[in-house]
Amino acid sequence: MHPKPIQKLIDIFVKFPTVGPRTAGRFVFYLLSLPQEELADLAESIKDLKKQVSICSSCFNPFEKIDDYGICQICRGPKRDKALLCIIEKEADLIALEKTKRYQGLYFILGGLIEPLKKGGEQNIRIDELKNRLEKDKDIKEIVLAINPTIEGEATISYLTKIIKEISPQMKITRLGRGLPQGGEMEYADEETLSSALESRR
Amino acid sequence: MHPKPIQKLIDIFVKFPTVGPRTAGRFVFYLLSLPQEELADLAESIKDLKKQVSICSSCFNPFEKIDDYGICQICRGPKRDKALLCIIEKEADLIALEKTKRYQGLYFILGGLIEPLKKGGEQNIRIDELKNRLEKDKDIKEIVLAINPTIEGEATISYLTKIIKEISPQMKITRLGRGLPQGGEMEYADEETLSSALESRR
Amino acid sequence: MHPKPIQKLIDIFVKFPTVGPRTAGRFVFYLLSLPQEELADLAESIKDLKKQVSICSSCFNPFEKIDDYGICQICRGPKRDKALLCIIEKEADLIALEKTKRYQGLYFILGGLIEPLKKGGEQNIRIDELKNRLEKDKDIKEIVLAINPTIEGEATISYLTKIIKEISPQMKITRLGRGLPQGGEMEYADEETLSSALESRR
Amino acid sequence: MHPKPIQKLIDIFVKFPTVGPRTAGRFVFYLLSLPQEELADLAESIKDLKKQVSICSSCFNPFEKIDDYGICQICRGPKRDKALLCIIEKEADLIALEKTKRYQGLYFILGGLIEPLKKGGEQNIRIDELKNRLEKDKDIKEIVLAINPTIEGEATISYLTKIIKEISPQMKITRLGRGLPQGGEMEYADEETLSSALESRR
Repeated sequence: MHPKPIQKLIDIFVKFPTVGPRTAGRFVFYLLSLPQEELADLAESIKDLKKQVSICSSCFNPFEKIDDYGICQICRGPKRDKALLCIIEKEADLIALEKTKRYQGLYFILGGLIEPLKKGGEQNIRIDELKNRLEKDKDIKEIVLAINPTIEGEATISYLTKIIKEISPQMKITRLGRGLPQGGEMEYADEETLSSALESRR
Repeated sequence: MHPKPIQKLIDIFVKFPTVGPRTAGRFVFYLLSLPQEELADLAESIKDLKKQVSICSSCFNPFEKIDDYGICQICRGPKRDKALLCIIEKEADLIALEKTKRYQGLYFILGGLIEPLKKGGEQNIRIDELKNRLEKDKDIKEIVLAINPTIEGEATISYLTKIIKEISPQMKITRLGRGLPQGGEMEYADEETLSSALESRR
Repeated sequence: MHPKPIQKLIDIFVKFPTVGPRTAGRFVFYLLSLPQEELADLAESIKDLKKQVSICSSCFNPFEKIDDYGICQICRGPKRDKALLCIIEKEADLIALEKTKRYQGLYFILGGLIEPLKKGGEQNIRIDELKNRLEKDKDIKEIVLAINPTIEGEATISYLTKIIKEISPQMKITRLGRGLPQGGEMEYADEETLSSALESRR
Repeated sequence: MHPKPIQKLIDIFVKFPTVGPRTAGRFVFYLLSLPQEELADLAESIKDLKKQVSICSSCFNPFEKIDDYGICQICRGPKRDKALLCIIEKEADLIALEKTKRYQGLYFILGGLIEPLKKGGEQNIRIDELKNRLEKDKDIKEIVLAINPTIEGEATISYLTKIIKEISPQMKITRLGRGLPQGGEMEYADEETLSSALESRR
C-alpha cells in the first residue's frame, strides 16, 4: 500500500516500544514534513548514539562517554552509599528513583523481568552479571528489590531473592513499601496494599 | 418521551450515585421485566430498610437493629482496641479496612470529604459529631486519618489535623502509608509516592 | 460483612443492568441517607409500576395504562405509516429513534439479541410473537432491521432475515446505513463502514 | 537528568506525533539495545527518505521516486475517474479509502484541518494549492469532502464548500454518509447520525 521507502521505515518504527502500524505511518509522514537538515540531524544522532553513550560495566546504566571510564557517574560518585544496592528493571526506573532525591545508594539494571509463563525467561535478563557483581562487591549490606509489584515483577522478586540468598545468605533484602498512590482510593485497593498502607502509617 | 410512571422512577433512580438518565431508564425497563412478587419484595425491602438498620451513634456505621442498642457491633466489640480511632470518609472504606483483618481499633465515619473549592464544605460532614466524640472519649491514643490521598482527601486531612490538635494537642495523628499499589509501576508513580515506598521498604 | 437487611438489598440491586457489588453497596448507603418518606415513595412507585404501565400487545412497548386499550399510543397513532415496521432490540432504541423525529412507521421490540455462541438463544427473544404479527399484519411493505451492527446484532439480523423471508418472500427488508458517526475518524473506521459512507455520500 | 546524547534524541522524538517525554525516553533506550548496523540502517533510511520519496504536485500524496514524474501513480492511473475529486485531511485517510477498493476517483490532501478557534488557521493547509487545482482542472464533476465529522472537520467542510462555490458555482459537492459504524449502538448515537442511518437504509 505504502511506497517502498516509507514502508521500510514503518517496518523499523513498528518495532519501537508502544508503536503500532498506524503510529509508525504517522511517524514517517511527520518525517516527510520536516526539512532535510532536521532529517540529517536525526540520522546522525541515531548513527552516533552508541559512540557517544557507554553502558556502565557495573550498573548497566547508559552514560555519556567523556573520558575512558567504563563506570558511570553514579557508580563513581563519592557521596553514594556503597552499602546499598537497588536492583531495578530498566533505565526509566533509575530516572524515577533519582528524581525523588531520597536514594543515595547504587543501582543494578536487570534489563527486563522474568515472564512467569515463559520457560528460561531469566536468560534475557542480567542474572550472570548480577551474580558476578554480588560475588565481587563486598561492601553491599542491603539490597532493595525496587521492582514493580506486577505479576512479572513478583516472579522476578522471588527469583532474585533465591539467587541472592545462595550467594550471600546473610544479606538484608528489602522491597518497596506498598500503599495507596497519590489519587488512589481505599475502596478499590486490594487487601495487601491496604494492609501494607495501614502498617506503614505514620 | 417516557410514560409518566416510568419517568417518575427514572427521576428517582437518576439521583442514585453513578446513575445517569440512560442507566436509570434501563433500570426501569429491567423492573418491568420482573414478576410482580419480586417488585413487591424490593419495594418492601426499601420501605423497611430504615426500620431494620440503625446508624451507630458512636461511629455512624449502619448496623442491623436487633435489640435496643444504639451502638454497633464493632464499637461494642470486647476485642477492639479502644486506644485506636480510624477516621474514614464512608461506609465502603470501613468494609475495605475490615476485610484486611489487620485493623482492630474503632472507626468514625465522616460521611464525606471537604471540597477545597467550596466554601463551608465542612458543614456537610460530621465535624461536630467528631469534636463531640473526641471531647468525651478519653481512651483514644492514636487517630489514623485513613482518607484517600486525593485532592479532597488531602484538604480533609489538613482540616481534621487542625481540629484534632485544638482538642487534644498531644494526640498521635497518623495517616496511611503511601506506596505502589499492586500492579503499579515505578515509572508512572509520582515522586512523593516513590519516596514513601522507598522509606517504608522492608 | 454487611448487616442482613443491607445485604438483601445489595443482592437485589446487583442484578440490575450494569450494577456490580460495589455500586449496589453505594445504592443502599445512599438509600439509608434519604428521609423515610422518599423511601416510601420509591417503594410505592416500584410496587405499582406494573399496575400503571402496560406492555403493548402489538409492539411490546411499555405505555401508561390510562384506559382499557392493550395497544400503545404509537401503534394507535393515526399518522403513523402502517406499511413500515421497524424491528428493534429494546425500549431504549425506540426512544432513540423517536427522538430523531424522522421515523413515522411502527415498531416491534424483540426484547434481546441472539447470542451467536449460545444454542437456542432465539428462545429468549420474541420470535413467535414476531412471526404471529407478520402473519396477521398484511399492511407491512418494508421491514427495517434497526439492530446494532455488533456481533450479536449481525447474528440477529441474519436470523430475522431468514424468518421474514419464510413468511413473506417478497417483503422489502432494509437495515440502517453504515457510516461515520459524529466525531468519528476515517483512519480508524473499518472498511465496510467507510465503503458504506462513500456510497451513501450526498 | 539524562546524558546529553540521549537527551538530544529524546528532544527530537518528543516532537513526533503522539510521543511524550516518557515514550521518547523508551525509544532511546530501545535504540541503545540495538546492534550498530540496525542503527546505521535506520539512520540511512531517515537521511535518504526525501531523496526516495516525492510529494505529488497534483494531489500531495507521497510516492516512490522512480523516474522523473512529479505526479503520483494514482493521479497518473488510466483507470481512475477524473470527474471525481476527493478532498481529504491527510495521507492516512487516502490509505484508508484506497483499502476499501470502492473509490476510483482522484484525491487532494489538504495537509490539516481548520481549527475553528484559531484565527487564520486556513493558512496552514493547502487552500491556495486547492484553488489553483480547481481553476485548472476542468474534468471534475463532483467533489467529495471526505473529512472527519469532528468539530475541526465540520469547520473545514464549511470553509471548503464556500471556496469551491466561489470558483465553480455549479460543482456537485458531497460528503460522506453518516451512520452507525461497526460495533456502534443506536442507544448512544447522536440524533443526526441516527437520522442519517435511517435515511440511508438499504
